[in-house]
This record gives sequence, C-alpha cells and structure tokens, in this order.
Amino acid sequence: MKKLMKDKTQFVSDMLKGIALADKAHEVIADSVIVRKERKEKGVALVSGGGSGHEPAHAGYVAEGMLDAAVCGEIFTSPTPDKILEAIKAVATAEGVLLIVKNYAGDVMNFEMAMELAEMEGIKVDRVIVADDIAIDNKEQRRGVAGTVFVHKVAGYYADQGLALEEVKEKVEAILSNMATIGMAIEPCMVPTTGQYGFDLADDEMEIGIGIHGEKGIYREKIESIDLIIARMMKEIEGQLDFNDSIVMLNGMGGTPDSELSVTAYYLNQYFEAQGKTIKKLYVGNFMTALDMQGFSITVLKYDEALLTALESKTESKYFN
Amino acid sequence: MKKLMKDKTQFVSDMLKGIALADKAHEVIADSVIVRKERKEKGVALVSGGGSGHEPAHAGYVAEGMLDAAVCGEIFTSPTPDKILEAIKAVATAEGVLLIVKNYAGDVMNFEMAMELAEMEGIKVDRVIVADDIAIDNKEQRRGVAGTVFVHKVAGYYADQGLALEEVKEKVEAILSNMATIGMAIEPCMVPTTGQYGFDLADDEMEIGIGIHGEKGIYREKIESIDLIIARMMKEIEGQLDFNDSIVMLNGMGGTPDSELSVTAYYLNQYFEAQGKTIKKLYVGNFMTALDMQGFSITVLKYDEALLTALESKTESKYFN
Repeated sequence: MKKLMKDKTQFVSDMLKGIALADKAHEVIADSVIVRKERKEKGVALVSGGGSGHEPAHAGYVAEGMLDAAVCGEIFTSPTPDKILEAIKAVATAEGVLLIVKNYAGDVMNFEMAMELAEMEGIKVDRVIVADDIAIDNKEQRRGVAGTVFVHKVAGYYADQGLALEEVKEKVEAILSNMATIGMAIEPCMVPTTGQYGFDLADDEMEIGIGIHGEKGIYREKIESIDLIIARMMKEIEGQLDFNDSIVMLNGMGGTPDSELSVTAYYLNQYFEAQGKTIKKLYVGNFMTALDMQGFSITVLKYDEALLTALESKTESKYFN
Repeated sequence: MKKLMKDKTQFVSDMLKGIALADKAHEVIADSVIVRKERKEKGVALVSGGGSGHEPAHAGYVAEGMLDAAVCGEIFTSPTPDKILEAIKAVATAEGVLLIVKNYAGDVMNFEMAMELAEMEGIKVDRVIVADDIAIDNKEQRRGVAGTVFVHKVAGYYADQGLALEEVKEKVEAILSNMATIGMAIEPCMVPTTGQYGFDLADDEMEIGIGIHGEKGIYREKIESIDLIIARMMKEIEGQLDFNDSIVMLNGMGGTPDSELSVTAYYLNQYFEAQGKTIKKLYVGNFMTALDMQGFSITVLKYDEALLTALESKTESKYFN
C-alpha cells in the first residue's frame, strides 16, 4: 500500500491535527472533534460528523455560517456516542443544538444515543437525517451523501438568522424531499487504515450509483463518453425528482482532477439545456469525497429563491463556494 | 483509458467552458483564454498561463486580487504566442501588463514572442520568470512549479496597490530567490489526451523531486513513512535556501486526498518545530497539480511581514486561501 501517512492507527488523529494547523480558527477537542475556537454565544448550534475519509466533509465546514462542530470517526466508521456528546456539549447554546446526520445505521444510532445523553444533561437538541442518494430505491435505506453539504449551509444560514431550533429543523426538512443525488466511480478508493481497495473495477469499467464508502451501485458497465454517463445518471434522478429550475452540485470523489470535473460540468449543463431545464447555480468541487476515489456525484436541488439566498450567504468555510 | 471526457481533441476547450460555467465572473475568449468579465480599468494587469493539466492553475486564479487572464494551452503544452497576445490585449491597461511565466523552454519562448508582438502594438509589457523547483541543480534550468501561485497573489496585491509595472516586477523578483519548492509522487498522472501514464512507478516506490508533468526526479526509493519523506525533501530545500521563519505551501498533486495532505501537514509542522523553525502561515490544498497524480510538493518562502500582508490580502479566487 502506498499512502502518505506514518501510523495507520493514528491516521485520523494526525489528519485532525493537520486540519487544525492549517485553519487557525479550528481546534481539536476530545481527540476527534473539530470545533471553532470562537464558540457561538447565541443561536442554534449545528453539529455534524460521521466516519472520516470524506474530507473536506465535515471538518472543512466548521466555520462561521455553517457548522459549529464536526465529530470525526475513524475512516468510514461512525463516531461513538461519547464523542458526539462532547461535541454537543462544547457548542451548545440556550437555543439548542441541531444534529445533521447522514443516513447510515451506525451514525443514526450513535447520534440518537448522544442526543438522549445530552437531553439528560438538560441540553435542548434535535436532529435531521439526510438520505439523498437515490441509487437506493427504498427511501428508508437511502444513504446520506453530497446533499448533506447543502443542508449544512442552509441550516447555518437560518441559525445565523436567529431562528429557533424547531424552525431551523423545519427549514432543513423542507428541502430534503426536494433534493436527489447519484454517484459514479471509475476508480475505487484505497483505504489507508486497511490497505484494501474499496471495491474492484476492471480497466474498462465504471459503476453507476456507487456510495461514498465504495458501496455497490445500481449497475456496472463499460465506461462511456461523459455525456452518455451524465444522461444515465440524470435519468435516475428524473425518475425520483420532478424538477425544472435547479441548484446543482457536481461533486468530485476525491481523486478526480479538476480538469475532468470541469469537462463534466460543461456536459451536465448541456444536458439541462437540452431538456429545457436551467441550472440557476452550479457548484463544482470536492465537497463530499471517498478518499482518493475517482468519479463524481450529481446533486439536484429544486430551485427556490430563498434557498439560493441561504446557499449564497457568507460563510468562512473555504470549501463551500 | 478511463477518463471523464467526451473527445480528447476537445478536452481543454470543454474544460474551459466548464470553468466559465461554474464561475460566472469568468469568460473564455480566443478559445483558450480565461478572463474576468469585468476588466480592470486601471493598474497593472497580470497574465499567466501555460499548459493545461495543472488546475486550478492558472484559470482558478483569474479573480480580483490575483490574475486578470490565464492563457491555457493543451495538456502539458505551452500556449501559442497568438493566444498569449489575445490575453494581453484583452486586459491591457495604460499602466501595462506583467506576464508571469513558469520556466519551461516553450513557455518562455512563446510568452517572449507575445511580449514583442504586444510591444509592437504599443502595449507596455514586461515579464517575470518563476523557477522555484530546486530538484534541478542548475538554476537556469529550474522549473516553475507551485511557488508560481505565491507570485500570482503577491503580484495581484501590489498591482491593486497601484504600483507601477516596474515596481510590481521588482516586488515579485525580490521573492523569487527567497522561495524553494520540491515535489514527490507515489502515483503517476494519466494524460487524458494520450491515454498514457506520465511515468511508471512500482507498487512500492516513490519518486522525490518529480516535476508537475511527470518529469524525472532526483531519485527513486521504496516508499517510507511520511515523516521520513518530509525530512528527505526538507533536506533538499535546506541545501538551497537559508530560512527560519517561513510561509509554507503544501500542495497536492491533484489525486491526493485531503486526508493524506492533512496528515502530511501535521508532520511537516513537526519537522519545522524539531528544527526550531516556525511556519508563520501554512497553505494546504491543490494549488498547482499534475492531473490526477498522487503526491505533493512543499514550497518554503522566507517570512517577511509585508509579504504575509500581500498573501493574506483579499482575493475573490476560491482557490487561494
């Protein structure tokens, strides 16, 4: 295995120390939580997190205008309830804490337990569960993927506007059913802590509908021209979401070069134009990755003026723009 | 070859259209030049460029506070003088144009020719040549690599301060001899327009001193722990540059995941501390890449208060922060 690291058992811990070094507004607490040094004094606080390996998610979104804390588990492994509780306690305000959880069994369970523990300590806390990956038919089992980053930003905006916990939750939940994501990969990720590839793909294959941990997709095919790949993926989204004007995120999986993402952006826009649909705002970059996987995901969010205002409002995160 | 693209002969053209779609402040002119839609009315204008494949360099730095135009050649291929001339003419002001050129024979020759053509049209124009890659002993032959991005930012600051062309050039040239970069790779890049890997590395090998087009490095070794790799690279820099307090860029080569860059950042800082040296400001990210190459470069710039002010001044580029 070739990875830039020292000790696989310290990989996440070393990574978090590196993140805090590069962003002086950050500090690491409880070994696995990134928080803003300047804690919020009032307004709803926002906590997200999950397994590591999706950088810049979620630590990169700990910034004014987005999250207050990110709890970072081991690679592709849910953080434990005690660490999530530490995060909640570190940032809790009188207005309460909203947990933004991706829909994976371990994350949902552990954030739930932490929520109960926090409530026993008198902290007002609630949660939203993001399940935007339409590669899975059963809505209950849909995974939380790149759309989670839109949720971070929208929640951050409404928290900054001074809305109550219930109201922030309501605003966020309103967008969950208006958002759909699908991913694809041409090269798997290599997991530094195990030395294993997340999955195997032949030299001429791609997989459509893949998850951000290398979970199996909907189907595997010979690789095609990017316009045909986009059409395949958009057909899946169109089967699940009725949309016209849209806000779109084109998310790189971590190992995809900017050049190919930009080529993809061009053909994605062409697809929308050919369908008579409009991308009102296009985000292109690495937002929710799977280590060094090569591939991308498309997230479509139905356009709404207030939503765009929320997404375009100021944040100090250098990863969301 | 597995690449996200449609037609290899249109790869760069498609990429530039995608870049302009994602950043509404940009437009493409002459098929291969990214310029700001709102041209600068006064003050020295800045033009850089070179072969494509180094994204976000240079198009991503076309923004208030940094470049006015980026001329984008084919992958790893210098742009032609006529395209460079188009860029110069598009952004020229009465105060003149400064060209920021990376030290490759083709780039130097073509920017030189474009400069002569522009002068014949009555445009005041000068250039600086960046040659920061100390992997090459002969200073004349040193390649321009990640340090070029520091030059973009410093030049942008002084141009915005209203300095004359000669003064901006002088400020930039003053830092060139105070800056050193060295790179390494663990995985080669795959060139989308040829379907070839930039070089070959065995499954357990790394190469120290590699260039951003896959040029040969100083030596090849079995991969080691990241702290040992950093020590090797810093020894090379220390052999060429006398420094203590520093501004440091840790640059990903395009396919390196953020997690490994952050781990590297942590051990890089440890190295400085062990030497009794200080990183006054640490930049971590993908600034000057080689397509999907996995690896990184370290750029050390001798600290100077005025320099840090220039680097930390505002820019609209989302890639420099």
